[in-house]
Amino acid sequence: MNPITISTAQLQREIDELAAISEAPPPVVTRVLFSEADLRGRAYVKKLCTEAGLSVREDAVGNIFARWEGTEKNLPPVATGSHIDAIPNAGRYDGVVGVLGAIEAMRALKRSGFQPQRAIELIIFTAEEPTRFGIGCLGSRLLSGVMTPAKAAGLRDSAGKTLEELRASAGCNGELISVALAKDCYAAFVELHIEQGPILEKENLAIAVVEKIAAPSSLRLKLTGVGGHAGAVLMPERHDAALAGAEIALEVERAAKNSGSPDTVGTTGVFKIAPGAVNSVPCEAWLEIDLRDTRVDTRDAALQQIESAAVEICARRGVRLEQQRVNVDPPAICDAKLVELVTDVCRRNGVSHRKLISRAYHDSLFMAQVCPTTMIFIPCRGGVSHRPDEYSSPEQIETGVRVLAGTLANLAS
Amino acid sequence: MNPITISTAQLQREIDELAAISEAPPPVVTRVLFSEADLRGRAYVKKLCTEAGLSVREDAVGNIFARWEGTEKNLPPVATGSHIDAIPNAGRYDGVVGVLGAIEAMRALKRSGFQPQRAIELIIFTAEEPTRFGIGCLGSRLLSGVMTPAKAAGLRDSAGKTLEELRASAGCNGELISVALAKDCYAAFVELHIEQGPILEKENLAIAVVEKIAAPSSLRLKLTGVGGHAGAVLMPERHDAALAGAEIALEVERAAKNSGSPDTVGTTGVFKIAPGAVNSVPCEAWLEIDLRDTRVDTRDAALQQIESAAVEICARRGVRLEQQRVNVDPPAICDAKLVELVTDVCRRNGVSHRKLISRAYHDSLFMAQVCPTTMIFIPCRGGVSHRPDEYSSPEQIETGVRVLAGTLANLAS
Repeated sequence: MNPITISTAQLQREIDELAAISEAPPPVVTRVLFSEADLRGRAYVKKLCTEAGLSVREDAVGNIFARWEGTEKNLPPVATGSHIDAIPNAGRYDGVVGVLGAIEAMRALKRSGFQPQRAIELIIFTAEEPTRFGIGCLGSRLLSGVMTPAKAAGLRDSAGKTLEELRASAGCNGELISVALAKDCYAAFVELHIEQGPILEKENLAIAVVEKIAAPSSLRLKLTGVGGHAGAVLMPERHDAALAGAEIALEVERAAKNSGSPDTVGTTGVFKIAPGAVNSVPCEAWLEIDLRDTRVDTRDAALQQIESAAVEICARRGVRLEQQRVNVDPPAICDAKLVELVTDVCRRNGVSHRKLISRAYHDSLFMAQVCPTTMIFIPCRGGVSHRPDEYSSPEQIETGVRVLAGTLANLAS
Repeated sequence: MNPITISTAQLQREIDELAAISEAPPPVVTRVLFSEADLRGRAYVKKLCTEAGLSVREDAVGNIFARWEGTEKNLPPVATGSHIDAIPNAGRYDGVVGVLGAIEAMRALKRSGFQPQRAIELIIFTAEEPTRFGIGCLGSRLLSGVMTPAKAAGLRDSAGKTLEELRASAGCNGELISVALAKDCYAAFVELHIEQGPILEKENLAIAVVEKIAAPSSLRLKLTGVGGHAGAVLMPERHDAALAGAEIALEVERAAKNSGSPDTVGTTGVFKIAPGAVNSVPCEAWLEIDLRDTRVDTRDAALQQIESAAVEICARRGVRLEQQRVNVDPPAICDAKLVELVTDVCRRNGVSHRKLISRAYHDSLFMAQVCPTTMIFIPCRGGVSHRPDEYSSPEQIETGVRVLAGTLANLAS
């Protein structure tokens, strides 16, 4: 086997080409699950996989598997992967680096003459982002069995379209029950991703090996007050749904700040009101709340506090409350041997590195239920992501791909 | 002159037909300025005017004038009118009763053999509702000269379209400067309208004669914070634009409640955030605030308090604030003689009535700058308006039209 050479120019060109497949003009990347842009993005990535000599298949929910066959067909394969869907007004690296970077890692291994014993599979997960259905990691939740096919079949987007309709019109056939993977069907899963936090940049390090992924949860609230004319309904007679929502959003902040854990983060990322006219008292509000923590006890206490406060606020204001826990997930503990292996690959390649807890969650959170899992993080400028100015340099990406390729080669041998 | 007979069946049929011209399915009525539904609604009303034998003209901003010529052509005409545009998710009576009811009043006077000395003009005002440009009473502001043509020409909707573009594509030609009316060009202006408040219903009265219209004002705020990943940006590092907006909305409520006047009402009717994804820290928020009062001093103090609080809140949260006073208008004092005349018409028709201060504002607020003005209110169920379940009974509307017809006949004789 010759030295591994990463073709950074080609990889950067592919990142640019995929970024141009977007629902919004550059530099904004928006690719919402099963939108026309998402479907074009999937087609683009499948084409790259085929050109790289990988065999491509798709499951019933649209997870894409691109396989490099190994010499020992009866051994569980090694898996890597990430996602290409992007929230509204996002950037070009979140998820994409782990997909296009993995393709380049496999091409580089092929160029070096490497032949895997175990197959290597790239998984491009359906809808890591929760934009369409309000729940993140749809594809990996179903793969891991954390979400039941029955629950998935009941999902509806804000326009009332079901997952069943949408996946059918996207050409994803078969029963959802066929999606779940058997335990230990993979020897390992390793995901390359941008950090989405500032630590690597601050410490001037190239790689973080993820030891643990914070425990995520989310709530969805519908508030129904009483509308009316903004001039005519006097203040004591009001049941303003938006003001109940405003109090709840501030309570989310308070609960996260006072949880007792510095790692608790709470966000009201969706806040919509109706009718939305300046001279009309808001009669309805819809909130979506994200709450995460590295600790489960403080996360759960904050969740409870928010839910109780919502009940109290709505009762006091005479606003009807429907609140729903969309997901309440445990943290993922990464596989210690796998963490050591990636660390060792960094060491052997002379790459600066540290261990890290991931506060953002990823498909790895769910793949950890199926097989030994870890993640490889590269720095991103200012720690920002989910924004058009999200950025990792070509050199930072190249280092990540090199470490991923080394890790996959080691695991597949 | 024979007795006046109102054709309630025809009027109700016309109310139904106009309600069916909407951007949303029944029972919702939505007709935003110069939308396709608004244009169809205008065409429908112009057809009714023509069929009633009125001569129709339109000014440069789309105010429609339907005239019944008088025998004394050199006397200033008597005017009545209201609007047909409707906010999103509204009902079928707000504005419409004063337009279709005035057409029926004129038809009824014609049937009775009445011949006016002064001309009677129905004005259908452009965009009483602030939906499109964030400012209410666009047509009557220009008619009264309260808004300058230069300011109007600079208006843009949320999609960036200018009033100039929109009125041109709606077929409204001529210069905006031609819209303003000369002082006392009308002998009087009387507007029939639903109360949009609960008082007539509670007191079981048929008519309110408006003595004064509360002073309206509105603010538009843009908040720019810092976005980022909801999992990765720790709480102390956040500059969440939506939370700044939430605090401001609650401050609007507080300022209105504590103004010292029970009539102060404050509403944050528009509250939009971006990017609007559950796992993304909101980086931008747009608020539109409505604040009104029967007293100017308490209204202005509350306005000041809200503006100062917004500055403080945004500074504390590291969120950039742009705030703009869209309108700060004085109250309208109705003409005492006109109020007495309408009261007298009620008395002579055996109709129960009272005097009232209008908390909602109307085109009459601005017509009061031009000529002696008052309004005739009829009850609406539960005092609600700006909602699909807004309702006045056929009998309540008939009584309003009868009082309007009697008033117009008296003024035009």
